[in-house]
Amino acid sequence: MNAIKDSVHDWIPLDPVATALLDTPPVQRLRHIKQLSTVRLVYPSASHTRFEHALGVYHLAREALTHLDIDGERARHVRAAALLHDVGHGPYGHQTEDIISRRTGRDHDEIGALLRETDLDTVLEAHDLDPGRIADLVAGEGELGQLVSGELDVDRMDYLVRDAHHTGVPYGTIDHGRLLRALRYRDGSLVLAPGNVQTAESLLLARALMDGTVYRHHVSRIAGAMLERACERLLDDGLDVETFARMADHDLLVELRERVPDLGSRIERRNLYKRAVWAGLEDVPDGIAEMTRKDERRAAREIAEEAGLDRDSVVVDIPSRPALKESRTRVIVDEGVERLETASELVGALRRARRAQWRLGVYCPEAAIDEVEPAAKVVLGLA
Amino acid sequence: MNAIKDSVHDWIPLDPVATALLDTPPVQRLRHIKQLSTVRLVYPSASHTRFEHALGVYHLAREALTHLDIDGERARHVRAAALLHDVGHGPYGHQTEDIISRRTGRDHDEIGALLRETDLDTVLEAHDLDPGRIADLVAGEGELGQLVSGELDVDRMDYLVRDAHHTGVPYGTIDHGRLLRALRYRDGSLVLAPGNVQTAESLLLARALMDGTVYRHHVSRIAGAMLERACERLLDDGLDVETFARMADHDLLVELRERVPDLGSRIERRNLYKRAVWAGLEDVPDGIAEMTRKDERRAAREIAEEAGLDRDSVVVDIPSRPALKESRTRVIVDEGVERLETASELVGALRRARRAQWRLGVYCPEAAIDEVEPAAKVVLGLA
Amino acid sequence: MNAIKDSVHDWIPLDPVATALLDTPPVQRLRHIKQLSTVRLVYPSASHTRFEHALGVYHLAREALTHLDIDGERARHVRAAALLHDVGHGPYGHQTEDIISRRTGRDHDEIGALLRETDLDTVLEAHDLDPGRIADLVAGEGELGQLVSGELDVDRMDYLVRDAHHTGVPYGTIDHGRLLRALRYRDGSLVLAPGNVQTAESLLLARALMDGTVYRHHVSRIAGAMLERACERLLDDGLDVETFARMADHDLLVELRERVPDLGSRIERRNLYKRAVWAGLEDVPDGIAEMTRKDERRAAREIAEEAGLDRDSVVVDIPSRPALKESRTRVIVDEGVERLETASELVGALRRARRAQWRLGVYCPEAAIDEVEPAAKVVLGLA
Amino acid sequence: MNAIKDSVHDWIPLDPVATALLDTPPVQRLRHIKQLSTVRLVYPSASHTRFEHALGVYHLAREALTHLDIDGERARHVRAAALLHDVGHGPYGHQTEDIISRRTGRDHDEIGALLRETDLDTVLEAHDLDPGRIADLVAGEGELGQLVSGELDVDRMDYLVRDAHHTGVPYGTIDHGRLLRALRYRDGSLVLAPGNVQTAESLLLARALMDGTVYRHHVSRIAGAMLERACERLLDDGLDVETFARMADHDLLVELRERVPDLGSRIERRNLYKRAVWAGLEDVPDGIAEMTRKDERRAAREIAEEAGLDRDSVVVDIPSRPALKESRTRVIVDEGVERLETASELVGALRRARRAQWRLGVYCPEAAIDEVEPAAKVVLGLA
Repeated sequence: MNAIKDSVHDWIPLDPVATALLDTPPVQRLRHIKQLSTVRLVYPSASHTRFEHALGVYHLAREALTHLDIDGERARHVRAAALLHDVGHGPYGHQTEDIISRRTGRDHDEIGALLRETDLDTVLEAHDLDPGRIADLVAGEGELGQLVSGELDVDRMDYLVRDAHHTGVPYGTIDHGRLLRALRYRDGSLVLAPGNVQTAESLLLARALMDGTVYRHHVSRIAGAMLERACERLLDDGLDVETFARMADHDLLVELRERVPDLGSRIERRNLYKRAVWAGLEDVPDGIAEMTRKDERRAAREIAEEAGLDRDSVVVDIPSRPALKESRTRVIVDEGVERLETASELVGALRRARRAQWRLGVYCPEAAIDEVEPAAKVVLGLA
Repeated sequence: MNAIKDSVHDWIPLDPVATALLDTPPVQRLRHIKQLSTVRLVYPSASHTRFEHALGVYHLAREALTHLDIDGERARHVRAAALLHDVGHGPYGHQTEDIISRRTGRDHDEIGALLRETDLDTVLEAHDLDPGRIADLVAGEGELGQLVSGELDVDRMDYLVRDAHHTGVPYGTIDHGRLLRALRYRDGSLVLAPGNVQTAESLLLARALMDGTVYRHHVSRIAGAMLERACERLLDDGLDVETFARMADHDLLVELRERVPDLGSRIERRNLYKRAVWAGLEDVPDGIAEMTRKDERRAAREIAEEAGLDRDSVVVDIPSRPALKESRTRVIVDEGVERLETASELVGALRRARRAQWRLGVYCPEAAIDEVEPAAKVVLGLA
Repeated sequence: MNAIKDSVHDWIPLDPVATALLDTPPVQRLRHIKQLSTVRLVYPSASHTRFEHALGVYHLAREALTHLDIDGERARHVRAAALLHDVGHGPYGHQTEDIISRRTGRDHDEIGALLRETDLDTVLEAHDLDPGRIADLVAGEGELGQLVSGELDVDRMDYLVRDAHHTGVPYGTIDHGRLLRALRYRDGSLVLAPGNVQTAESLLLARALMDGTVYRHHVSRIAGAMLERACERLLDDGLDVETFARMADHDLLVELRERVPDLGSRIERRNLYKRAVWAGLEDVPDGIAEMTRKDERRAAREIAEEAGLDRDSVVVDIPSRPALKESRTRVIVDEGVERLETASELVGALRRARRAQWRLGVYCPEAAIDEVEPAAKVVLGLA
Repeated sequence: MNAIKDSVHDWIPLDPVATALLDTPPVQRLRHIKQLSTVRLVYPSASHTRFEHALGVYHLAREALTHLDIDGERARHVRAAALLHDVGHGPYGHQTEDIISRRTGRDHDEIGALLRETDLDTVLEAHDLDPGRIADLVAGEGELGQLVSGELDVDRMDYLVRDAHHTGVPYGTIDHGRLLRALRYRDGSLVLAPGNVQTAESLLLARALMDGTVYRHHVSRIAGAMLERACERLLDDGLDVETFARMADHDLLVELRERVPDLGSRIERRNLYKRAVWAGLEDVPDGIAEMTRKDERRAAREIAEEAGLDRDSVVVDIPSRPALKESRTRVIVDEGVERLETASELVGALRRARRAQWRLGVYCPEAAIDEVEPAAKVVLGLA
């Protein structure tokens, strides 16, 4: 059996399906999509790609299946789905997710059409795998789909340790060996064996600490918001969304520099906007936190007008409320199955903590802060 | 300057005082005292010693002082205190702390007398250091004492990462570089710079997860309780407590095997008692959780009698309520200084979580469980 | 002082010059140049960049200077040079070094002109640094230049550990702390203190093992040779070499795909040529190993003709003889200074070992191997 | 299946035999025998034990067997032998190996009698394992014995990475995953698959660098030689060698302090002798390097007399010529099987390098160096 060297899981053995899938263009494309988009502007070592993450998820899926004693064609479908789970991502991964979803009505984990268009279905069928089942697994459907996409999925277990390894921030180094060993199926649900409330908490806490320190670092958020704005411009200027969705990071970076030169060059050279406003929930009127991307752009335009600036000089960034998906992890407690949010005191507190960390940002060139700050307060009705 | 290789902090440079102190018998003795006493019966790689921990604390103290811009003789006192902070420990460290303190009235961080008796004072004075100030620093007194022993001390920062490294349990891998960089003095108190509520939380969470998984693992607790019982026997049989307090692990292990053969051999060979009772706070009558060690022993004796067993065949283990000392960490928030318990939603939840994890244990040889369980319920009035 | 998180050296403190230099376009460009060009096609985690490497070299330079007790403006010049030592690299770093050097007559470590053209000189002068001295240091000139570029430079110390960390191949994990502590100046030469022959050997061996396993892995060599060929085409088709030299990886990848579509797409999708010939020195006629790049291209063209193929379908790859620069490391032995090649038995053996590992490669599409192999043997006169 | 957490290999799953064997006194005793005896006096983090090493070897044996596609009762015997391979060690492991072997005529890997005397045979038979076959495997006999004890054994693969992890010296971090994947059987011999000359070299080099830096560090050698001398005294004074051989480290440390007080206390407190003589092969008359331990002791006595000192005040330490066992590793090269010493240029050079590193030591209390040095030169006929 082939094996590939990974800096996180060491040698990853590859079954024949994996070997065949790795050689296809849609999987090779993941070499050119960074796992953490703009985070590397804060943590320079974080240049890792969705390609190595896909290998890691594939590896943990195999280990999970072994511990759960699942083999045969069910296991082969899950492993292939694990390897393919991110092929639906656009350039810069999560950063362009909303844009693509709004314009195509398709989420990144809906890969049925993609499998057909890219001939991945042929490769799968040549190995007696059903493309439809693979697409369902990637979408998290069915009993086994929970392993690929769910509160206890191997995706999460890989990215936490991998992002910790590559950023150098240790908070994400969970004990995935312990988690994998504790996985059980109970009435069709993936749960953790008795005695693992703290194991589940450790996953939740690792995610929460990585969120605050890495994933939602304000510099990365500024760069990300600028990137989204620039992408919207690109699409408004006529770039086909399907072409956009199939780009890789390097394509987008060149395209932005050429077609949206100001924002594009700024992103390329890390010449970023600064914060004119950084406001917590208590300073924000009702409804603001629920604004759509479209509302954000309109607000940005109004602020720019009010401040007498070019419309791209202001970016409004309103993050979604944190979902804390891990809080729905199921754990066996005293013979019954409980959601972590019931079994653990920490979930409620973490929810409140994250609410307290929520920040609305308004960003602009450093020289324009004095104009943008008051304009933003007026337009957004901030305290 | 000399340097010594450490598996956690890599090369640790040694100033002349440190070089001189390392060669003294009280510091060399720390080579023979394991950092985690009975934990290595659960995590076999955890054989590390208080000697390497002392070096690590010395190293982090120097880094903290540099970041705080403290040098000269104040810094030299703090560094020496860091290196010496654990010389007052008895064999098996924390495990014999209560026994020694009850019989001598002296805590392990009261090292004034020890410095004199072991001629450490001469070494210190030869380097123009004041033994009295060193003793005060080790006891956590004064502004600088907080660095050596306090909520934000370098002791904690070293043991969390070191115990994680040696057990293999990743939960303790805090970002000590971030903590050290965030240290400030404000009105004589050691605090964290603005923007570090989550940094403080990460320390608290690392400690909480290590507590549940490592420090309070039930197998380590059983071995620890057996060890304490055996030590009490040794002292009751006439061993002088001062001699006992100056022993190292190997001395105690041999002494126990020879003078308390049953328990001694069991500890040496990891032939441990098992849990006859493992009860949470809700199953325990009022007052039980506050029982003293003396009460514990009397209860164990009564249970043994009730079960028709030899008195050493039953061990009762009632842990103290978790102190959560880290919750008193001070952080600068909006120009003011707040305790973490005020600034963070997590502290209250962690307190409740740890309350829910609290367990009273009654242990005995496996063959005696059927007799001991009902006897214990009667004697302790358990539900 | 600012600090930046690195996955290899943890927190790297930044002096004001470094902070200013990091924000300039030529240094930000290094974020877009991978450290190991095509190696990541073999080791998928190796996506790290020259930007993080530059930070690492800067960090080790500061540590080396501290150990050597060098401070003031001399130290400030060395640190700035360390940070800038790679700004002269073209896209894909070492892979395009020869091409650029042949067409411009300028090596990547000649950065004098670059400093002026990019206004880096202004930034340097604003911090009282002399751009000319910086350029000399980067070129390895003078006593201090040896720290930046020489047999014992901090460049090497950083890339070995960093490449090990990111590929997952442990061979490069040298003990840089030991090396830095052993650095001395003796009669203007950078040497290792007495007792360090083995320390010097460890560096040499780490490099040799990484060469065989990572840097000269045959798959990376194939991709690299294809890339070089494609770049030559680009330049032959009229792209200005100065424009080419200032590109970053993403620019080149897009440019190649658009202007040299076959090779460009193959590189992007890792659809690589295979080995038609893989011959050791004993199978190669005299003179072949000394062929220039121009000779290589002519031979490839002849082989393609002979095999009846398009000229870009054959790539000839003749590596230079391994230089083993580390063998010239100076070590103090018995009061005198010796070159490692004199002091160590291993150097000669390593030279012979590397000679034995030398391979000439002829690559082509998999389907053409049967035609290319005999044609290559004829044209190159192979055994 | 049970699993145990290891700081090197993470979770190690335990089969029922392993679980049963771990609970026996001879295996539990390994918790009290340090892997690197006196090395921890130089590298303070190196307190790891033969117990965790035994688990590691067991783990790698299982992985090797899987890669070699060996299962069933053959595999079960090998795994049990791997776990038990070190139970024959005396206190302080290799340090007392010669003493025990000279007085009992039994090497540490002859465990047949031990299995019977300690009832390990009963445990083995209860799991349908043949104690005789286990003993043969531990002695390296037969095809499968090479996996447990041979040039390519899993013992070596574990201790190199484990000792690197615990000392902090990176030289031992081999790529055991690569080695395990390359194992093959060819005509009854364990060999490495084609293309692995460098893999074999990396093992040899890791061992050579660890030897110089760790295993044969002069301070560890001094402490080791003092320990051997003290043990000889203990046995001469009437301690039964079988009792001695079954001691653990803590037993020996207490026994030495009580019965050989001067040397015993010095070892316990790291109050070590210093080097009076440190001579290379070129300064030593013929025959000296071949002296037996008995010769060593006689020479030490003569030197002490000549210098007018107590006989225990001088210790002579003449290391054996380095065996370089790894040089006999077999690798498949061009379809045939070659020994590494034939296939690799490095072996000869390493042999010469190690010959150049060989040192004879004469040690004594620091105050006696001026008397001992000339006396030693006279007695040993040194240049």
